[in-house]
Amino acid sequence: MNQDYIKPDNWSIIEEGFDLEQVKSSESLFSIGNGAMGQRANFEEYYSGKTFQGSYIAGIYYPDKTKVGWWKNGYPEYFAKVLNAPNWIGINIEINGENLDLATCKAVKNFRRELNMKEGIYNRSFEATLQNGTEISVNVRRFLSIDLDEVGVINYEITPLKADAKITFKPYVDAGVHNEDANWEEKFWEPLDVKNSANEAFVTARTFKTHFTATTFMQNSILLNGQNQNISPSNVEASNEKVQFTYEVKVAKDQTASIQKLGGYTVSMNHENTQVAAQNVIAKALSLGYDQLLNNQINAWAKIWEMSDITIDGDVKAQQGIRFNIFHLNQTYLGKDSRLNIGPKGFTGEKYGGSTYWDTEAYCIPFYMATKDQQVARNLLAYRYNQLDKAIENAEKLGFKNGAALYPMVTMNGEECHNEWEITFEEIHRNGAIAFAIFNYYRFTGDYSYIPEKGLEVLIGIARFWHQRATFSTYRNQYVILGVTGPNEYENNVNNNFYTNYLAKWCIDYAIEQINKVEKEYSADFDRITSKVKLEATEIQHWRKVADHMYFPYSETHDVYLQQDGFLDKELVKVHDLDKSQRPINQKWSWDRILRSPYIKQADTLQGFYFFEDHFSKEQLEKHFDFYEPFTVHESSLSPCVHSIQASTLGRMEQAYTFYLRTSRLDLDDYNKEVEEGLHITSMAGTWMSIVEGFGGMRVKNDTLHFEPRIPKDWNDYSFKINFRNQILKVSVHQKETKFSLEGEKAISVFVNGKEILVEPNSLVTV
Amino acid sequence: MNQDYIKPDNWSIIEEGFDLEQVKSSESLFSIGNGAMGQRANFEEYYSGKTFQGSYIAGIYYPDKTKVGWWKNGYPEYFAKVLNAPNWIGINIEINGENLDLATCKAVKNFRRELNMKEGIYNRSFEATLQNGTEISVNVRRFLSIDLDEVGVINYEITPLKADAKITFKPYVDAGVHNEDANWEEKFWEPLDVKNSANEAFVTARTFKTHFTATTFMQNSILLNGQNQNISPSNVEASNEKVQFTYEVKVAKDQTASIQKLGGYTVSMNHENTQVAAQNVIAKALSLGYDQLLNNQINAWAKIWEMSDITIDGDVKAQQGIRFNIFHLNQTYLGKDSRLNIGPKGFTGEKYGGSTYWDTEAYCIPFYMATKDQQVARNLLAYRYNQLDKAIENAEKLGFKNGAALYPMVTMNGEECHNEWEITFEEIHRNGAIAFAIFNYYRFTGDYSYIPEKGLEVLIGIARFWHQRATFSTYRNQYVILGVTGPNEYENNVNNNFYTNYLAKWCIDYAIEQINKVEKEYSADFDRITSKVKLEATEIQHWRKVADHMYFPYSETHDVYLQQDGFLDKELVKVHDLDKSQRPINQKWSWDRILRSPYIKQADTLQGFYFFEDHFSKEQLEKHFDFYEPFTVHESSLSPCVHSIQASTLGRMEQAYTFYLRTSRLDLDDYNKEVEEGLHITSMAGTWMSIVEGFGGMRVKNDTLHFEPRIPKDWNDYSFKINFRNQILKVSVHQKETKFSLEGEKAISVFVNGKEILVEPNSLVTV
Repeated sequence: MNQDYIKPDNWSIIEEGFDLEQVKSSESLFSIGNGAMGQRANFEEYYSGKTFQGSYIAGIYYPDKTKVGWWKNGYPEYFAKVLNAPNWIGINIEINGENLDLATCKAVKNFRRELNMKEGIYNRSFEATLQNGTEISVNVRRFLSIDLDEVGVINYEITPLKADAKITFKPYVDAGVHNEDANWEEKFWEPLDVKNSANEAFVTARTFKTHFTATTFMQNSILLNGQNQNISPSNVEASNEKVQFTYEVKVAKDQTASIQKLGGYTVSMNHENTQVAAQNVIAKALSLGYDQLLNNQINAWAKIWEMSDITIDGDVKAQQGIRFNIFHLNQTYLGKDSRLNIGPKGFTGEKYGGSTYWDTEAYCIPFYMATKDQQVARNLLAYRYNQLDKAIENAEKLGFKNGAALYPMVTMNGEECHNEWEITFEEIHRNGAIAFAIFNYYRFTGDYSYIPEKGLEVLIGIARFWHQRATFSTYRNQYVILGVTGPNEYENNVNNNFYTNYLAKWCIDYAIEQINKVEKEYSADFDRITSKVKLEATEIQHWRKVADHMYFPYSETHDVYLQQDGFLDKELVKVHDLDKSQRPINQKWSWDRILRSPYIKQADTLQGFYFFEDHFSKEQLEKHFDFYEPFTVHESSLSPCVHSIQASTLGRMEQAYTFYLRTSRLDLDDYNKEVEEGLHITSMAGTWMSIVEGFGGMRVKNDTLHFEPRIPKDWNDYSFKINFRNQILKVSVHQKETKFSLEGEKAISVFVNGKEILVEPNSLVTV
Repeated sequence: MNQDYIKPDNWSIIEEGFDLEQVKSSESLFSIGNGAMGQRANFEEYYSGKTFQGSYIAGIYYPDKTKVGWWKNGYPEYFAKVLNAPNWIGINIEINGENLDLATCKAVKNFRRELNMKEGIYNRSFEATLQNGTEISVNVRRFLSIDLDEVGVINYEITPLKADAKITFKPYVDAGVHNEDANWEEKFWEPLDVKNSANEAFVTARTFKTHFTATTFMQNSILLNGQNQNISPSNVEASNEKVQFTYEVKVAKDQTASIQKLGGYTVSMNHENTQVAAQNVIAKALSLGYDQLLNNQINAWAKIWEMSDITIDGDVKAQQGIRFNIFHLNQTYLGKDSRLNIGPKGFTGEKYGGSTYWDTEAYCIPFYMATKDQQVARNLLAYRYNQLDKAIENAEKLGFKNGAALYPMVTMNGEECHNEWEITFEEIHRNGAIAFAIFNYYRFTGDYSYIPEKGLEVLIGIARFWHQRATFSTYRNQYVILGVTGPNEYENNVNNNFYTNYLAKWCIDYAIEQINKVEKEYSADFDRITSKVKLEATEIQHWRKVADHMYFPYSETHDVYLQQDGFLDKELVKVHDLDKSQRPINQKWSWDRILRSPYIKQADTLQGFYFFEDHFSKEQLEKHFDFYEPFTVHESSLSPCVHSIQASTLGRMEQAYTFYLRTSRLDLDDYNKEVEEGLHITSMAGTWMSIVEGFGGMRVKNDTLHFEPRIPKDWNDYSFKINFRNQILKVSVHQKETKFSLEGEKAISVFVNGKEILVEPNSLVTV
């Protein structure tokens, strides 16, 4: 935890002062992205200190050869890794012949970073005294254009402070990059071509194996006191993978020299000839010019915020936290491209490989459904539909048949990217979340068309999987599900994880319901699908047997469902009775000790209560919350949000608020001491849920929005907007009242604490 | 399975015909060793075909940096690997200027290998037609001297068949070797020094990190028709890690040129100056001369066989099988050095890393106790005593304290060499086998002195471990042991594995018994030990609570102890109802499928019935055997022997015989299609047990030998010898009678089928 490192501010992330030990953490926190690409906040100029270089292009991955200690049948031979892409931001700087390197300067003063989330712009400034005594002031501004999403812009200004100086700018593009997490220290990029003319340069490289081609480009302008000098490089160095230009400028004391560098990527996913595309996009950006690009950026972000902002009055840290979360979600995924998804580290690091976990379905879809056009959520669902064949193949590798589908634990292209047997083969509840998202999408949007069109095939594949994965126990005369890992990854290979069994039963029930509905209402689709997947009525009867006779572990003594068989055999010492020196247990304890402890990494049984809240009474929720939360260590970023929502539901606002802060400021305050590896993007959607579903108590029941608004005691008010079926409802919760207003054309009914109210377009309703 | 590949023979392992695809398998099967070193049967001459090069020095290992996919707390950073040592057998051959390479010869005829187990000598002969048309006949003899255990001898004879020929011998020593299983493709040997003079050469190299120094040496003589030519090399090539001599001989048709090469290792474990030691050992070997070395070898093996041979009349394959097993056990470990142990692959391959598993205590000690001086078994026990501190450290790493000891799953030097959490951290029953071996040693030898001297400290460390590892379940009001892997590694992270729980209870009970006995009878030792390990009476009371209230899973329906909690939830389809195409499941099924299946890799509950046979009735054994064996796939080499013994005990001789063949010819017939990786050395001791304890029914009860002799129906007779308390009892079992005779001075009573008989020295008793 590092609570005072980031300065509180409503709209910006601010760091003040230069600390060599914080550089990698700040590189994560100040990351920028535009949905199509993103990058860590690495310095443009050479830096010899500790750094984690990262620039990423959405959808571009590399299948790295699997590395394990002992091979298990079924492991993928190769798996997709988030790929560190060629560097286009680099600008080496020489001042009077000496390299500017913040790690070796005599002094660095007034170092400041500001990530202006309102405008989507990252600024860095400092004053440095070099070893040669020269003193300069530096201002750097960088942004990745939302509009022109292949382009990033850097404006790098230098002012000599005490005397005239010779300033050399050496901007470059470089495909000679590597991944820190490469299993075999291999290069992932094969350089194909290098080209330059005037102030432009292009490095075209292709990923090995996957053969994605990317042209990494730059265009440079040198300015003096804001006036373009229209000069060309005095020197060009080119290798087979890198081009570097040299520009020399003599600058008088207190005058400012700057370089404006346009850069970015054009990739073969989008263009036949990536080099031509790069030339075109440079031309387009130049025709707009720096000022217009900047204005467009501010406007684009204003539009995003217009819909997705959550305001909090009276608590700057909470405000900063939620905006940081919403900002990064939008930097990572804007929903324009159904080939993309939301990686757990977004564009901020390599960890976890692959991009798509069940996080997308369980945590991210609600945010995107409510703050974007419904097509965005539909694209996220379609992503899984498009990978159904691979999920069926994946299941076949594990011995399933007849079209049973097991979605991978993590993937880029539908193939499994994970290789620990207890996760890869056993954390199968992910399949349930994917079905749940289909249900959730329809519940929220009312758009049924997705199901006959695509969703039903996914539901059938998943139902087939659960049917085959269940085992009939003659001993219990019920179906059991053996050898699984639940959401709580601090248990491995357990039998009858309540959450998994419950989801499995629900998936089958829901699939059958939808089959019946599609048969009745979309008979052409029904015929097309059943003939494609060869589904017969008898097969459905077999499924039903499993769903109808599923076993759920339950304790009469405690009147709770048990997380899994044998849970009560554990030594049930609560977390608050555990010595603090033992925490976090995932850093302090050996794995076996964690496994036999009662400690829960993230909501497991309670995740089931979150998904299926309406299947249980509030008393049941309370009982289960009181039984499980005291054993929960929340060592997953996905844990506090669900608990915050449930604490809110139970009216425990203090606890809900504590969980809220933990989820919203997880990275800003570096709770888990690992922010330097990247940010926890997917849990950020959970933060949004803790306000909207937790504090706001928003639910959709029978095609209608319901709210049970609550507010933390120190807040004056908070507000959020919901795109509900193409109308925008704004909800503003105050200590004593809640206000609703509607941007739309048709009045809607909402329920507030169970009472129906009508919200007319463009008029405020106060409850 | 490859049943007709090795020719049946009572005393030899014979291969006839050259098959490129069999070379790696034969390299394993024809391996030779002398307890101090050993090697795969690699060709001396260059070979471009598929080969797995291996030469190993007992006790020399390398700590390779651990490789895992996802790191778990508690994994060892480095672990000891069996190290491929420098090559001293190499002799490149040129015939009329062409390299002899069996993979590229025009023709290879009459290729034959014979491993003469009686004499400990490996022969290889063939006729080859080279690409240049030259035809030669080759005879190679190789052995590793038992007496002079730093020395190996090669006699390599070449006879030109159709015309005179120029033959070039290029013997070399080479430290530029690598391990096939190196995690990071690093070199493990650092060359230090290279020296040669006249016909001798020395390469001295040191292992990285562990700093074992070894001088690899050779001395060569060139003979023509058996006459030493006393010639020196015409050329010497030396690098920093290799020396190669060139000898050229003109040989007339049908005349024979040969090279006699002495080679081997002198190591820093045994010598201060390994190079001087190498010079000395060469001098010693030369003073004996080739013929005497050969004679000594034959005599040394005759002595070994004198005591450890098992004869079988009427079944050549069975006879060959048991001798193959006994031969390799003696090649691997002769009990001279308490720093050494019995690796699962001996000197025949790299697999499994490290050298010491629980195999030693559970399977090997009975063989060595009965066929060697009792000091040998005592050395094996002392090996663990000497590593007790490391076992305590190992337990501390996993969070145990107060001197609790957890022995590693596999080790070279006491440190853990395994890194799969479900094994490393959870297959803790190994600790029980180590305690059981102490009990077993005393039961068999009557030598109690080991316990006060060393054993008790080990027992206390182990009892402390079990006490801390058990969890009190308030739910059951009993102690449970959560999260373990039993001997059946096809279950991971289960709760209350019967075998583990039973052993844990027994270990505590046995430790307390020995503490009490030592207190009474060896009070000085008692005081020394209790003050050293700080043992108080109150601590023992805590242990006792665990032992007295241990929970054992049990099914009333089946009246059997359950292998673990939840076993009955599985789909209990027996192995014979499983489609053959699904076998072996460890090659056909994904790991999760194996885990949730009922299939058992090797005796688990039944291993407990094997150790503690006298705790259970024969009816209980039968019930458990009938319940578990049908689910057992015997995919561990350690499985068939225990089942063979139990089938014998239950009078099911046909089944016992089938299991016997499977254990004794596991490698010869390559049941598991993996013999090319090396032999299954430790299970070979199980083969011995299946005859002596299985067919012979030998047990020790109340300081007396008991037998229940049985014999497979096609055998005429079989015989074995037992060193029982320094007297040698010979047992010869025929279809209708059993004969006993005694080499010793004192008559002993033995029980045969419950009836006491007296065996006088040097007189035959027939029953």
